[in-house]
Amino acid sequence: MRLSCASCGRTYALSDLVWRCADCHGVLDLTGFTPVMPPPGELALRRPSLWRYAEALPIAEPPEITLGEGLSPLVSAPGRPGVQLKVDYLMPTGSFKDRGAVLLVALAASLGVTRLLADSSGNAGTAVAAYAARAGIGCDVYVPESTSAGKVAQLRAYGAEVCEIPGSREDTAEAAARAADVPGIFYASHVYHPFFLQGTKTYVLELWEQSGGRLPETLVLPVGNGTLVLGAYLGCVELLAQGLIDRLPRIVAVQAAGCAPLATAFTDGLSGPADITPSGTVAEGIAIARPARGAQILSAVRETGGSIVTVTDDQVHSAHTELARAGLYVEPTSAVCWAAITSSGLENAVAPLCGSGLKSKPPA
Amino acid sequence: MRLSCASCGRTYALSDLVWRCADCHGVLDLTGFTPVMPPPGELALRRPSLWRYAEALPIAEPPEITLGEGLSPLVSAPGRPGVQLKVDYLMPTGSFKDRGAVLLVALAASLGVTRLLADSSGNAGTAVAAYAARAGIGCDVYVPESTSAGKVAQLRAYGAEVCEIPGSREDTAEAAARAADVPGIFYASHVYHPFFLQGTKTYVLELWEQSGGRLPETLVLPVGNGTLVLGAYLGCVELLAQGLIDRLPRIVAVQAAGCAPLATAFTDGLSGPADITPSGTVAEGIAIARPARGAQILSAVRETGGSIVTVTDDQVHSAHTELARAGLYVEPTSAVCWAAITSSGLENAVAPLCGSGLKSKPPA
Repeated sequence: MRLSCASCGRTYALSDLVWRCADCHGVLDLTGFTPVMPPPGELALRRPSLWRYAEALPIAEPPEITLGEGLSPLVSAPGRPGVQLKVDYLMPTGSFKDRGAVLLVALAASLGVTRLLADSSGNAGTAVAAYAARAGIGCDVYVPESTSAGKVAQLRAYGAEVCEIPGSREDTAEAAARAADVPGIFYASHVYHPFFLQGTKTYVLELWEQSGGRLPETLVLPVGNGTLVLGAYLGCVELLAQGLIDRLPRIVAVQAAGCAPLATAFTDGLSGPADITPSGTVAEGIAIARPARGAQILSAVRETGGSIVTVTDDQVHSAHTELARAGLYVEPTSAVCWAAITSSGLENAVAPLCGSGLKSKPPA
Repeated sequence: MRLSCASCGRTYALSDLVWRCADCHGVLDLTGFTPVMPPPGELALRRPSLWRYAEALPIAEPPEITLGEGLSPLVSAPGRPGVQLKVDYLMPTGSFKDRGAVLLVALAASLGVTRLLADSSGNAGTAVAAYAARAGIGCDVYVPESTSAGKVAQLRAYGAEVCEIPGSREDTAEAAARAADVPGIFYASHVYHPFFLQGTKTYVLELWEQSGGRLPETLVLPVGNGTLVLGAYLGCVELLAQGLIDRLPRIVAVQAAGCAPLATAFTDGLSGPADITPSGTVAEGIAIARPARGAQILSAVRETGGSIVTVTDDQVHSAHTELARAGLYVEPTSAVCWAAITSSGLENAVAPLCGSGLKSKPPA
C-alpha cells in the first residue's frame, strides 16, 4: 500500500509523511490496496461502528483509539417519504469528520508519530484533535480567526495547540501547509491525506448495508473540499467493482451560492474549480474557494451522471429551521442538502446531516 | 398496563394524564407489564437502536418519531483497564435523556396529545422538545433562568416555548407542576412519568448485550433526580427476574458535594432525601435538592449493596479535564463518575458519559 500522485504517478511510502507530490504538488491517492466488503451474514453480527467493514479499510481497528464512531442512524425525512436522512452528526465529536479522522490518527499511531498537524474551519480539526488526544499524540490545529468560540473551546479541551490565523480559510490552509513542509511532521489533512477518504467512504458502505444491500438513486451531499463527496464516490466505486450494486448512484453535490467554485465549473464545463471571489455564506463549513481536489470532485460527479448545484443563504436558513422544527438540530452548513432537496423536489434520495447544531454559535 | 402509586397503590389509566397520585401525591410506577429480553441470536440481527429490545419496552417503536437513539458505544477508559465508559452522549440531542424522552413522546403521540409540558435544568427538556417537534406535538419547556444560552437556543430551534423561571431548579419544578395540574395537559416529566425510566433502563440492557450477556460488578452512575439510577436498577431487576444475570450489580451513585441530599441520607441511614441547603456546584445537571423519587433511589442503591458518594467541584474539574485530554469531551456534570472512579480506585466498573461537552457554556 503506497501513496500515489494523481497527476504524475510518482509513489511514496506511507511512512514518507508527504502530504502532496514532492515533484509536481499533485494530490495523493492510495494505491496497492484491495478493499472487500465482508459477507452480509457476518456483517450483521459485528459491532455497530465503522470498523465492521474491516476488510474494506486500509488499517485495523485500534482498540485504544476508537470512540465507537460510525453506523449513524438512517431516519425518515420530515414530510418527504422518498427521502431519508443519515444522522451523521451522531459521532464522538459531533460531525461526520470523525470517520476520516480516526483513520488518519490510527495511521499516525501505527507510524510512531508523536506530534501531528491539522487545519480546519472547525469540524475536521476538532475530530483530529480528539483522536490525537485519545491516542496520546500531540496536536497543533490551525483555524481561521473567525472560528466559533465553542469549536475553539472544544479543541483546547482536547489539549490541542490552537493557532488562530487571520484572514480567509485559504490563509489558514496556507499557514498549515508551510508548517507541514517541515520534515518529520505528520500533516493529518482531511483534504490531502487519502486515508481520510478511506474513512468517509464508510458513509456509503453503511448506507448500502442499512438499505438492505442497495443504494438510493441519488446521494445528495454537501461539497466544499469534497471529503464526503470523494469518500462517497470511492465507496460506490468499490461496491460496484465487487458487484454489490449494478450502477453508481447519481451524486448531487451542493454548494453555497456565496462560494461556489465547483458549481460554477460544473455549469461551465471546466475540469477544475472556477476562479471565484467568495461573497460569504452562512454555510461556513463548505466555504472553500480553491478546493485542492476540485478536479477529482468534478470528474467524480460527472461520472455518476450527477450535478453540482447551489443554494442561497435564505434557503439554508429556511432549511435549517425546518429541520430543527422536526427535531433535527444541525449546523447551518448541514442544512444545505435539505435546502437543495426541498427546492428541487428530489425523491429516492439520501442526504447526510453532517454536523451537530450544538457546534453553532448561540445567538447573542 | 396502568400507572400505580408507589405510596398508596391507587392505579390510573395511562390516558388519565395524571403525573402523581391524585390522593396522596405519591410518585407513580408502571404496573401490569411483563418485559422480556429478545433471544440473543435474534437481538444480534436487529438495528442498532434501543428499539432492538422491543419485547422489553412498554410501547412499540414509532417510525416517524425515532431518531435512531440508543446502542451507544462502550469504550475503554483512559489508563484504567478495568473500567469502561459508555458514550451515552452519542444521542440525537446530545444526552442520555433521549432514551426516556422518546418513550414519553411516543406515549403522548399514541394518546393523541397535541401539547405537552416539560421541565428541566436543560438536557431532559431538550430531549423532550426534540422528539415533540419530530412528532408534531406542541411543547412548553420550563427551565431555570440560569440555563446556558446554548441549551435555550437548542430548545427554541426545536420550536418549543421556553419559560425561563427565576430562582432555583426547585422553583422551576414547582412552576411546571402548577402548569401540569391543568386537566388534559400531558406532563412529559422525566422525574415523575414512569415511561421515562422504561427508556433509561435500556442503558443496562445495552450494557448487558455489549458485555456478552453479563454486567460488570459495579455500575457507577450520576444521581440528581435519579432518572438513570432508577432506570438502570429497573433494567438490572428485569434481567435478574429473567435469569439473565445471577445477582444485581452494585450501584455506586455519585452526587456533587455541593448538593448531596441522597449521599447524606445514605450515610445517615435515612429512608428519604436529607433536608439540605445546596451550596452550589459545577455539576448543574444533578444539583437537585429535593429529588421526588429520593426514597426509591435510596432503597434501590441499598438493595444492590452499593453506596452514594460525593465528589467536590475540584475533583469534577480535574476529571473533566482528564476525560477531554483523552478525547472524551463531556459536560462537567458528566465528569462526576470519572471523578469518583479516579478518587476511589474502583475496578470492574462501567460509567456513562451522559452529556456532550458541546452543551456547556464556552469560556467567556
